[in-house]
Amino acid sequence: MSSPTFARIDELKSHAGQTVTVRGWVTHLRSSGKVAFVVLRDGSGSLQAVLVKNQVSPETWTLFSELTQESSIAVTGEVRLDDRAPGGVEMGAKELELIGRSPLDYPIQPKEHGIDFLMDNRHFWLRSPRQVAIMRIRNEIEQAIHDFFYERGFIRVDTPILTAAIGERSGLFSTEYFDEGNAYLAQTGQLYGEAAAAALGKIYTFGPTFRAEKSKTRRHLTEFWMIEPEVAFNDSAANMRLQEDFVSYLVQRCLERRRAELLEIGRALAPPEREKPPFHRLDYTDAITLIQKKGSETKWGDDLGAEDESLIVADYDRPVFVMNYPKEAKAFYMKENPADPRTVLCDDLLATEGYGEIIGGSQREDDYDKLVARIKHEGLPIEAYDWYLDLRRYGTFVHAGFGLGLERTVAWICGLQHIREAIPFARMMHRLRP
Amino acid sequence: MSSPTFARIDELKSHAGQTVTVRGWVTHLRSSGKVAFVVLRDGSGSLQAVLVKNQVSPETWTLFSELTQESSIAVTGEVRLDDRAPGGVEMGAKELELIGRSPLDYPIQPKEHGIDFLMDNRHFWLRSPRQVAIMRIRNEIEQAIHDFFYERGFIRVDTPILTAAIGERSGLFSTEYFDEGNAYLAQTGQLYGEAAAAALGKIYTFGPTFRAEKSKTRRHLTEFWMIEPEVAFNDSAANMRLQEDFVSYLVQRCLERRRAELLEIGRALAPPEREKPPFHRLDYTDAITLIQKKGSETKWGDDLGAEDESLIVADYDRPVFVMNYPKEAKAFYMKENPADPRTVLCDDLLATEGYGEIIGGSQREDDYDKLVARIKHEGLPIEAYDWYLDLRRYGTFVHAGFGLGLERTVAWICGLQHIREAIPFARMMHRLRP
Repeated sequence: MSSPTFARIDELKSHAGQTVTVRGWVTHLRSSGKVAFVVLRDGSGSLQAVLVKNQVSPETWTLFSELTQESSIAVTGEVRLDDRAPGGVEMGAKELELIGRSPLDYPIQPKEHGIDFLMDNRHFWLRSPRQVAIMRIRNEIEQAIHDFFYERGFIRVDTPILTAAIGERSGLFSTEYFDEGNAYLAQTGQLYGEAAAAALGKIYTFGPTFRAEKSKTRRHLTEFWMIEPEVAFNDSAANMRLQEDFVSYLVQRCLERRRAELLEIGRALAPPEREKPPFHRLDYTDAITLIQKKGSETKWGDDLGAEDESLIVADYDRPVFVMNYPKEAKAFYMKENPADPRTVLCDDLLATEGYGEIIGGSQREDDYDKLVARIKHEGLPIEAYDWYLDLRRYGTFVHAGFGLGLERTVAWICGLQHIREAIPFARMMHRLRP
Repeated sequence: MSSPTFARIDELKSHAGQTVTVRGWVTHLRSSGKVAFVVLRDGSGSLQAVLVKNQVSPETWTLFSELTQESSIAVTGEVRLDDRAPGGVEMGAKELELIGRSPLDYPIQPKEHGIDFLMDNRHFWLRSPRQVAIMRIRNEIEQAIHDFFYERGFIRVDTPILTAAIGERSGLFSTEYFDEGNAYLAQTGQLYGEAAAAALGKIYTFGPTFRAEKSKTRRHLTEFWMIEPEVAFNDSAANMRLQEDFVSYLVQRCLERRRAELLEIGRALAPPEREKPPFHRLDYTDAITLIQKKGSETKWGDDLGAEDESLIVADYDRPVFVMNYPKEAKAFYMKENPADPRTVLCDDLLATEGYGEIIGGSQREDDYDKLVARIKHEGLPIEAYDWYLDLRRYGTFVHAGFGLGLERTVAWICGLQHIREAIPFARMMHRLRP
């Protein structure tokens, strides 16, 4: 007997009429007594295999009756095109093989489970069709990010996670680092990205970042992935053009290549289909006027809260840049706005549908004296920023960059209620397992 | 006057005959008194701009005389094709603009610097042509990794960095995690990758991993990036075929697209050009015989040291798989070899030219009882592995995977003497800055 031809479910169409073996896990079973149906999943798709009692061996028929949900099996049979089937094929099964039995108490059952139970069983929950679809969309977004920057000549730069103290800032995870004192888990790769932009011109980072904050909202993780491009000689306006091109590229790519998964999770497609440049641009001062008219008590000088952001985006059908915030509301490295030195050349990009900020960006302060003054004003230890200040000492340059939160972007594109579904194994204040 | 057309140096060929503005940093200056030359770099390449005294304004000529190494400038002029120039173009400069002056004490000078000095000034050292070339090759390898897996239907899975205790293992960085006790920085994403493979079929991780080990060799970092594919229903043989396809894809991609950078850093191209499948396969037992013949005192049962690895690869012109190590020398999760239960179904892939192990891979133990026995035998706390054991309780499956060390791969492909040059900002036992 010749060795079997193995195929993944998403490859079956090209095997129509052939006999192949598919391996996967049982998701559904039913039988009429003479005809039995096994639905299995293998990560690439879902397949219905049909067994006709008088066309298979008694052993195979008996084995069918012993199958349970999530048993892993190999099923061999003829691939048949069938337009009514999901994926366009079904299998006329001839042989079954049990690889790994699954007891009847498989934790995830076709009923409502509480979120803590699902998160405790994340290793199983990930197998459900909705979670598989989200992970496939996340993968598409990640590959699209790399493709976008690669096609445009950016160099990816992996910035360090373990970093030396840059002042007593709150929200830092720390660890002992040999004889060097404490190391801190990076909250951003940006400062390193700026150094790399002076070497490589256009760079981006893609890595995990950490916030030891006691936030328990549906938009916060303690460990999340950030993408931080930094471009030499870009000013704030160019920075925003890059952001809208980037974000719309990601959205359109998912619509093109992951439409089936978006539909699987019940995503309405009309909103993302509108996400094309140019995005709206709104000065911070005008944003304050707008939200005050709508009843917000936020005053000029304050940072915007989640509710303020929702009030702003309600008027718009595409994402909105809120630009040029007051200096005091933003980080020390943002460049002073020459047109209004109370403000800085920055932007927050607010997603549609109330998903809030997915990008924070700015032109960077390239004036050595102004940067030193800001660092001192914030009470940060100047000596820790020595190498960062070097970038302004030797051949300082106009530059700008931004940070995109990956999980917020996944949640927005997928239309998820909570960010915990946007990452394989979420880390939150009370969640360190599995 | 119309606004200037900005271009990066690598785009200039398409602007031949046009007047454009290039922004970058000065690397070389020379003048004959009537003709002056400025060489600048912008991360995408290097450009020589030629100024003829009687064809530029007196202000521009004066400005030239004030330029210093690493000053950032904008230079405007006509792009001229010139086969003798690097990149095939030079510029007939008409205007100069100084963006950021650089004092004469720029730390990196055209002379020999000690390695500690260079590492202390990594933010400047990265600007040197050799380091730029290495970073561009690293970027190519990273994109090639993503492309390889994307084209083959793998789903990227970002596994957590912060993980709960999995036993008192050595070499772990730890941090306080709210009220949950200590969290540990991941040494591997594999266990999570196995859970994800049961959901998604074929997955890979791509992230930083951490080892708090007091190693000071030229092959060790405390923070390094790992790529860990995991494939449902792959056995050890399929796992090795995937590895050789993967590694040769990366090498050939660099030869195709980063040949100029490889030549820039003086890489001999003949060895990588030979890195095509099939790689050599050598059973551990045969490897022991081979190295003992060559004088090694390593005995059957020992792990192989760096010197042993060098003795092995010396006989081969392509990478070598050493397979099926003794159980005691390897991790608990590797599958027992049915043909010789003293050994496990694993492989280390040894690179050519003495670069040592770049991959460790194995089929995973899918038998619940055997895995429990191994965990207990190693003295690991069984309760910490509860969710991992679940993968064997419910629908266990044949699966295999491996981990590729990114920096070792970059060092090997680039032919670097020390791994510290293979990553933008290296972390080692005594190195936490910049």
